[in-house]
Amino acid sequence: MGIVVQKFGGSSVADLEKLEQVSNHIIYEYNKGNKVVVVVSAQGKTTNKLISEAEEISSDTNLRELDSLISVGEQITASKLSMLLNKLGYKAISLTGWQIPIITTNEHGNAKIKNINSDKILSLLDENYIVIVAGFQGIDETGEITTLGRGGSDTTAVALASVLDSEKCEIYTDVDGVYSSDPRIVKDVRKINEISYDEMLELSSMGAKVLHNRCVEIGKKYNTPIIVKSTFEEQSQGTRVDSSSIESHIISGIAKDDNIARITLIGLENVLGKTYQVFKLLSDNNINVDIIVQSFGETVSKDVSFTVKNSDLDKTMKILKENCEIVNAKEILSNKDFSKISIIGVGITNTPGVASKMFGALYDNKINMHIISTSEIKISVLVNSDEADLALNAIHKAFFGDK
Amino acid sequence: MGIVVQKFGGSSVADLEKLEQVSNHIIYEYNKGNKVVVVVSAQGKTTNKLISEAEEISSDTNLRELDSLISVGEQITASKLSMLLNKLGYKAISLTGWQIPIITTNEHGNAKIKNINSDKILSLLDENYIVIVAGFQGIDETGEITTLGRGGSDTTAVALASVLDSEKCEIYTDVDGVYSSDPRIVKDVRKINEISYDEMLELSSMGAKVLHNRCVEIGKKYNTPIIVKSTFEEQSQGTRVDSSSIESHIISGIAKDDNIARITLIGLENVLGKTYQVFKLLSDNNINVDIIVQSFGETVSKDVSFTVKNSDLDKTMKILKENCEIVNAKEILSNKDFSKISIIGVGITNTPGVASKMFGALYDNKINMHIISTSEIKISVLVNSDEADLALNAIHKAFFGDK
Repeated sequence: MGIVVQKFGGSSVADLEKLEQVSNHIIYEYNKGNKVVVVVSAQGKTTNKLISEAEEISSDTNLRELDSLISVGEQITASKLSMLLNKLGYKAISLTGWQIPIITTNEHGNAKIKNINSDKILSLLDENYIVIVAGFQGIDETGEITTLGRGGSDTTAVALASVLDSEKCEIYTDVDGVYSSDPRIVKDVRKINEISYDEMLELSSMGAKVLHNRCVEIGKKYNTPIIVKSTFEEQSQGTRVDSSSIESHIISGIAKDDNIARITLIGLENVLGKTYQVFKLLSDNNINVDIIVQSFGETVSKDVSFTVKNSDLDKTMKILKENCEIVNAKEILSNKDFSKISIIGVGITNTPGVASKMFGALYDNKINMHIISTSEIKISVLVNSDEADLALNAIHKAFFGDK
Repeated sequence: MGIVVQKFGGSSVADLEKLEQVSNHIIYEYNKGNKVVVVVSAQGKTTNKLISEAEEISSDTNLRELDSLISVGEQITASKLSMLLNKLGYKAISLTGWQIPIITTNEHGNAKIKNINSDKILSLLDENYIVIVAGFQGIDETGEITTLGRGGSDTTAVALASVLDSEKCEIYTDVDGVYSSDPRIVKDVRKINEISYDEMLELSSMGAKVLHNRCVEIGKKYNTPIIVKSTFEEQSQGTRVDSSSIESHIISGIAKDDNIARITLIGLENVLGKTYQVFKLLSDNNINVDIIVQSFGETVSKDVSFTVKNSDLDKTMKILKENCEIVNAKEILSNKDFSKISIIGVGITNTPGVASKMFGALYDNKINMHIISTSEIKISVLVNSDEADLALNAIHKAFFGDK
């Protein structure tokens, strides 16, 4: 029997009744003879409440103090869950980030895990303790409290599973797993049983909020299987994320990303390094560029289109215009309020007919594609935002049918 | 200019408005050129709320986890206060017990401070930081979180002031200082301007709740002046507790302690070691004995009276009767519902007329004294509980007059 890491999110630990449901999952694995490490988030809305109290004190919050403040949320959950397991007759012990310790970079509010000392946890597991770890937190090398930012507790869990060479990392949440598209928009979404790390990375960066990219990246690096499943559904099999991909569907999911703006540089001088100079200029100004598409027009010039967030459009246009000695395009066009629809699946571009099926579904619904971009495992198209939900449903139906 | 330690209790830090008042006291000392260390309690009723949440989980709370849970209260306050001071333009930084670290024994819920490493605080003070310390907490030598029990944040403050060789430790609270008696019972109580450590120890063990004995003991050991004053009264001079006692009144205070039972052993065999055997028997059974009075009757036997808490009376009587081969008294009498009234002042028993003034006040009010006990700095009498408030007022009036 091996080590199992289980992670429970804020809605799964919101109150005592839910903690009792959580303890059933823990006890189940423990009684099978496994060594169990549990990672918990703050209860319910605790973190948001603490953040808004901090904002009440100052609009320009001291990030070092904010980390010290909000890290208590996970510590509270860990202590309570350990109390409950002790009451139920199980040996359990809670650990904070600094007690392990989980060493991170010093970027308060968005720290990265550098190193986890597994000695303490391994020795407690050897004494048959169930080890409850406060997620989302660590300390930097000088002993300052840090937090890991969005998806932090997932990251703690997968990182712990990786250094402990755990057989799996279960991420318990309030949904039954990862779905083929957003169930709030698409009616007949399908649960994905198995998905590769790369597909999951594409799906989550495309707006599927179930798993944060950071933890999937760690899982991929250490080849740690991640299972996403429901805390509250007894029979939940969830979705397994691992290196294999024996999924029967070529397409594992369809995602949508809103609020996208497109900029086109017409007649950019076609000399070596020009494109590099333009995008370095944007990157130096902290503009996050997503899709880049380049089409050759003439031999001496080219057209380049790229997308940014709607909210970055004005700033981006200002920078481009102020640096015309670098950009040097004949014309700069821009439009906003696009959505990106992406289909994701391993080997997608090597499978005949996938792209044409996608484009056909859009054509049948008279939906214009403003940009097309493909990678090894995904095809993305830009459509008008007011047609995006229709596009998502049409493509989903084309690949998965009704029901 | 030296180091000043300021401590603010739960009611002084209950909300943002109160934190702003607290910051005024801090900034005042800082702007005078002092290095300021601030110790804070949990906000308002936070600790009680966390304890009741723990009790909801289990009636037999795991004390190790309870310490981890409740220690977050002070951490929250420390972070928030530091945020506020930063917002006001001052360099401030919060530290938890483990970040300093404050090393304690491992008695969870009632740990004793063994050692404080002052290096980190001193180096932050040298960088002109205002250092905000989460009170009430520490870690044991294995890195487990501990809490210091009742009066814990006061203890943290005075201990820090002592190791930092601070010029004073200010304990801010919601009263103006230490009073000559309980203002809820006695009308014309007087604020004490200056009191010795020993007198303060007697007063606080007698039921004056302002300062816990543990912090006064540390103050005495390291000769650290403690100033008790009001957070909210601008002109509060407070009460200074130090080794000198230049108080104009011989009597510094009058205290009352309720729920006392008296036991009398009649005709105890008068042989060497008999009294020791009896009280060792009680101590081995965790019975806390307060006053002991021995009166010689005949040459072969003696009568011994002593007091215990009302709640310990039945258990005490059972032990005495079950061990008659040790106790060996002709008769054992007991009564309950007494109160102890004590007058406290340095040199009290060397000052003629003090005892007779006290006894006279009681006689004038027809109040019987059931036991009299004196020490270097106090005289205690046992009266019936239903006459205790009258006794307290009568004695207070005799020494301090009306108004």
